[in-house]
Amino acid sequence: MIITIGRQYGSGGREIGEKLAKRLDYAYYDTMILEKTAKESGISRELIMRYDEQLRDKWMAGLASGSGTGSADHLPLALRVVLAQFEVIRKIGQSGSAVIVGRCADYVLRERKDVLSVFIHADRERRADRVSARNQISLEEAKKRIKNTDKHRAAYYNCYTEKIWGSAESYHLCIDSGRFGIDGAVDYLETCIRQLRQV
Amino acid sequence: MIITIGRQYGSGGREIGEKLAKRLDYAYYDTMILEKTAKESGISRELIMRYDEQLRDKWMAGLASGSGTGSADHLPLALRVVLAQFEVIRKIGQSGSAVIVGRCADYVLRERKDVLSVFIHADRERRADRVSARNQISLEEAKKRIKNTDKHRAAYYNCYTEKIWGSAESYHLCIDSGRFGIDGAVDYLETCIRQLRQV
Repeated sequence: MIITIGRQYGSGGREIGEKLAKRLDYAYYDTMILEKTAKESGISRELIMRYDEQLRDKWMAGLASGSGTGSADHLPLALRVVLAQFEVIRKIGQSGSAVIVGRCADYVLRERKDVLSVFIHADRERRADRVSARNQISLEEAKKRIKNTDKHRAAYYNCYTEKIWGSAESYHLCIDSGRFGIDGAVDYLETCIRQLRQV
Repeated sequence: MIITIGRQYGSGGREIGEKLAKRLDYAYYDTMILEKTAKESGISRELIMRYDEQLRDKWMAGLASGSGTGSADHLPLALRVVLAQFEVIRKIGQSGSAVIVGRCADYVLRERKDVLSVFIHADRERRADRVSARNQISLEEAKKRIKNTDKHRAAYYNCYTEKIWGSAESYHLCIDSGRFGIDGAVDYLETCIRQLRQV
């Protein structure tokens, strides 16, 4: 089974994913998808990071102007990076049970029946506290970073998946980690997945 | 504890709420809120139904033009109906554990710490099948009804709650009843609530 986790910045989605993977004895992937993509595609890690969960270039305009000729080499760089990442996610999906955080994994693996797509969110204050403590920055700075990161994640997700980031209907399950706590959310997800596996 | 359930039309939210209430031995409220509102406010049931989860009048324009003078009698009818409904929901919240479907109950009871707000959704095809079978109408007609009802529910919710209907962050928990099934969703909610009550 594959669990994909979308998350608001600072909501604890990554921590929840890691703990869940440990409990279920599943493989766990987040930023290491970037390393794998670099290794398999030959594109540098720096470039891959530059386009990770961001929409930086107006590459669609490039596509529309006819620069694409069918060969992947002619695709805009941003799109080549995304497609290489999607390919890595597809392979991860074929190699056994896993928890995958971010990077539109829910969309890449949408045809599979054994995927549970999850979205983790929390109220702004709680996320600001978390981001501020983790990065040793002011609350104000944390709030800016949250707004900015979520804006990029939403734009990236909405562009590549034709769904809406953070909208309930884009996911099988959405959980407020502020209401349940990180460990509470892990508990519920674990219960839920064990029930699903029995069906 | 109070469970509030928002739901897409045809997602089975009401059935899930009823089954959940039965399992937990909680009181259950959906349209009977209308009867209670009629009885307690003296407004006719017909009028209350007319404004139930709908934004029919441009009553805000009326408010802005200064027709309100502080007495509830001078408020636009739509708003008087909504406030009477909210008052009934507040009283329900004070009278013991309950499951309440729709009518912005999550917003009305937002200050309470013992509320779990849930949103139930499902993919369009599954909802159309359900609505078509239940109402003995064509799939096409069912899809129209779904679109129309959800539009009204969203407008009503967004107006009175200052949150966004169907957005993950407006709720503690969002569940795809298509992925889990009606009974699966009930199972999962029950587990979740029993765990929350132990904290």
